[in-house]
Amino acid sequence: MNVEKFPSKLLENAVNEFSKLPGIGRRSALRLVLHLLRQDKEEVSRFGNSLIDLCNEIKHCKICHNISDEEICPICSDPNRDETVICVVENIRDVMSIENTLQYKGYYHVLGGIISPMDGVGPSDLEIESLLERVSQGNITEVILALSTTMEGDTTNFYIFRKLKGMDINVTTLARGVSVGDELEYADEITLGRSILNRVNYETLVGK
Amino acid sequence: MNVEKFPSKLLENAVNEFSKLPGIGRRSALRLVLHLLRQDKEEVSRFGNSLIDLCNEIKHCKICHNISDEEICPICSDPNRDETVICVVENIRDVMSIENTLQYKGYYHVLGGIISPMDGVGPSDLEIESLLERVSQGNITEVILALSTTMEGDTTNFYIFRKLKGMDINVTTLARGVSVGDELEYADEITLGRSILNRVNYETLVGK
Repeated sequence: MNVEKFPSKLLENAVNEFSKLPGIGRRSALRLVLHLLRQDKEEVSRFGNSLIDLCNEIKHCKICHNISDEEICPICSDPNRDETVICVVENIRDVMSIENTLQYKGYYHVLGGIISPMDGVGPSDLEIESLLERVSQGNITEVILALSTTMEGDTTNFYIFRKLKGMDINVTTLARGVSVGDELEYADEITLGRSILNRVNYETLVGK
Repeated sequence: MNVEKFPSKLLENAVNEFSKLPGIGRRSALRLVLHLLRQDKEEVSRFGNSLIDLCNEIKHCKICHNISDEEICPICSDPNRDETVICVVENIRDVMSIENTLQYKGYYHVLGGIISPMDGVGPSDLEIESLLERVSQGNITEVILALSTTMEGDTTNFYIFRKLKGMDINVTTLARGVSVGDELEYADEITLGRSILNRVNYETLVGK
């Protein structure tokens, strides 16, 4: 649609707003708005209000910088977690992914991004200083670097590793290897190579 | 994600609302909400308010039942259009599509759906009565049935055709045929068959 003639300004505004979202073009935006028009008024107001509440009331946890409704997020205020471990992640989605594994009981630290000179993101734009402060103050013995396996992720990992070097902290990173359920022939060679180098004692895996 | 633990109720609400939209699952919804969280507060409030305004203030044109900001839509209130022709369409998207062709200068009538017993939509749920009223009152000489070429569309076409039968109106329907730019070998046989049956005098097409 090149020449777009909306019969209504209100409709056009809503379509414009939707089409600003990533991955939603103008045709999809129109489809979504027309879908909303077929819903109850209350339903649509609830949608609109949920967005307004979101931007006005959401906070970032003062400790781990995760998104939160309170000053301190539910994870940081949970006393039953292992206070000797901090897992460093890029964003809140990663926190949710790791929480969903039910395998991790320590705390988190959300950087808010990774070092990416191409996008103008340097170490000072990320929550790295506050991480160093947390590590130097608490009784933390291990920092898990759980960033993406990209060039930027590796750069950020290395930067944090260097900063933590003098602190007598065990710095670990996520195991890289063949996915569970994957067939070997379809794994890429770098992943497969890493999984050979970092092979695990079978006895530790299955228990004694 | 089976076990979804959101660190924030506000976040969860917004994700719930987004994932009610057609074609947007919970993962995409989370991605969209996190995108909004990275935007300015004003930007997000504008989005929320555009939806609230949409559902509270939008009207349906009293004449053609198209979506409109006023009681009468811009098309119906345009005196320069051809008042002898009404084009019957299913919904407002079809109005926009036809308007974008710049080939039609008459008025519209938006049915608000098509007859579909499977979905419990009968003739009385659509704006058919008001169409008949318009036709009987005005000086309309032609009604163009521009509904989808589906079973439901054909049923609705036939229903309206029967209703208009005694009224001395020229009832027409969109030409079916091979798309402009399509290669013949890829056209389906029904479309190709129709385009042979409804072949057009070449002289009328190119002008004399």
